[in-house]
Amino acid sequence: MSNTVTAALLIIGDEVLNGKTQDTNTHTIAKTLNSIGVSLAEVRVIPDVEARIIDAVRVLHAAYDYLFTTGGIGPTHDDITAESIAKAFGVPLEVHAASYETLARYYANKGQDFTPPRQKMAKLPQGARAIPNAISAAPGIAFKNIYTMAGVPSIMQSMLQHVLPELRHGDVLLSYGIETDVGESTFAESLDALQKRHPETAIGSYPQFGNDGKTSAMIVLRHPDHAHLEALAQEIIDMLAADGHAEAVGLLT
Amino acid sequence: MSNTVTAALLIIGDEVLNGKTQDTNTHTIAKTLNSIGVSLAEVRVIPDVEARIIDAVRVLHAAYDYLFTTGGIGPTHDDITAESIAKAFGVPLEVHAASYETLARYYANKGQDFTPPRQKMAKLPQGARAIPNAISAAPGIAFKNIYTMAGVPSIMQSMLQHVLPELRHGDVLLSYGIETDVGESTFAESLDALQKRHPETAIGSYPQFGNDGKTSAMIVLRHPDHAHLEALAQEIIDMLAADGHAEAVGLLT
Repeated sequence: MSNTVTAALLIIGDEVLNGKTQDTNTHTIAKTLNSIGVSLAEVRVIPDVEARIIDAVRVLHAAYDYLFTTGGIGPTHDDITAESIAKAFGVPLEVHAASYETLARYYANKGQDFTPPRQKMAKLPQGARAIPNAISAAPGIAFKNIYTMAGVPSIMQSMLQHVLPELRHGDVLLSYGIETDVGESTFAESLDALQKRHPETAIGSYPQFGNDGKTSAMIVLRHPDHAHLEALAQEIIDMLAADGHAEAVGLLT
Repeated sequence: MSNTVTAALLIIGDEVLNGKTQDTNTHTIAKTLNSIGVSLAEVRVIPDVEARIIDAVRVLHAAYDYLFTTGGIGPTHDDITAESIAKAFGVPLEVHAASYETLARYYANKGQDFTPPRQKMAKLPQGARAIPNAISAAPGIAFKNIYTMAGVPSIMQSMLQHVLPELRHGDVLLSYGIETDVGESTFAESLDALQKRHPETAIGSYPQFGNDGKTSAMIVLRHPDHAHLEALAQEIIDMLAADGHAEAVGLLT
């Protein structure tokens, strides 16, 4: 579809890979981007290692319309995202004047010295814009098609909300759910035939296994048009009528 | 480190990318692998698209000691993982006799026909071994250095437990936490110096932002030796003594 805008997400964080932290940013970003018509097409999680960040940023920047990153923009030695992105594109890090002032004021208000590690957070790749951080002052970074955000979920969310208005987007895909109380192998062949007749609609099937040993499944349809989804859902319910075991859930959020 | 065994995880699932599902398998697999001395070095999430699966499987299979995949091994049209892996290595899918019998018995016990979509789940890449599935019979796949597991968390976990004993592994890295009640910019310079003096220990710093506007941080040390971690933690606490704001949490799980 030419009317598709794609994004990748790069999660930079040893803490996700070593199991210390359960990442929740992927789910938030996936829901948010899809809700405005940007299709999240790939996610990668990599460690805080410069060469790995540089490689992944170059690949994902080139492959998708947008690249979002989370993590590694704080003051400590393991926060190397800004520097790695600058290196990925051969530009220097520069003090971003407005961010420098914001951070200086933030620490002055707290009665704390504006030390070099704190100043470091005002250094952005040359040509970058700052994404405001209402919580802890250290900015995110908008550079080329890359949005670099904090890893802390509350800060990430405020940065994401800030950049949403400037994103190009395609049609918003609505999700429509049909709950069945049979296992998905029951309807696999007819659903396959239906998918072939309706290539314009993404049809997914997700099994569920109850503690009582019962299997069931949710069929999910994705398409921009609500009326189309309702008609197709009815077609699936009719198709499954022999089983009498399917009902439309309606739009999913 | 030559004594490091690495793994990648490939999550195959539109439902994670479109925000329908919050992935929890990454966290489970990260904790489990690290607990036995296998370092999870990369995670990718990609859609149910054959070309994307083939590309990612080839790259990650070659780059790491092990590749784990989740998702796409059920009976429906969007379950294409086994076929894609076979194509990635130019081998045919073949009926795996023992899995075929297991599935035939499973459906017979349920009083259901053993239809082609159900039979499909017994087809594995030529040369693959089956990973037992105690919950819904459809096997996982062990093929080359690749372990293909279900996306449903309970089934994934039982498959993972099954393959753990056969994995090579390196030293188990223990994690040791030091809780501070100052922001990480307070100790960023001294922690950087400490990391440079202790390149054998991975030192991470993770900010926390309370609802009351208070900032704090957790410093996490990772190394195989408990006594070494305790000594280094004491060094950090002494280093932060001027602030009087750090205490060892001890081993993290």
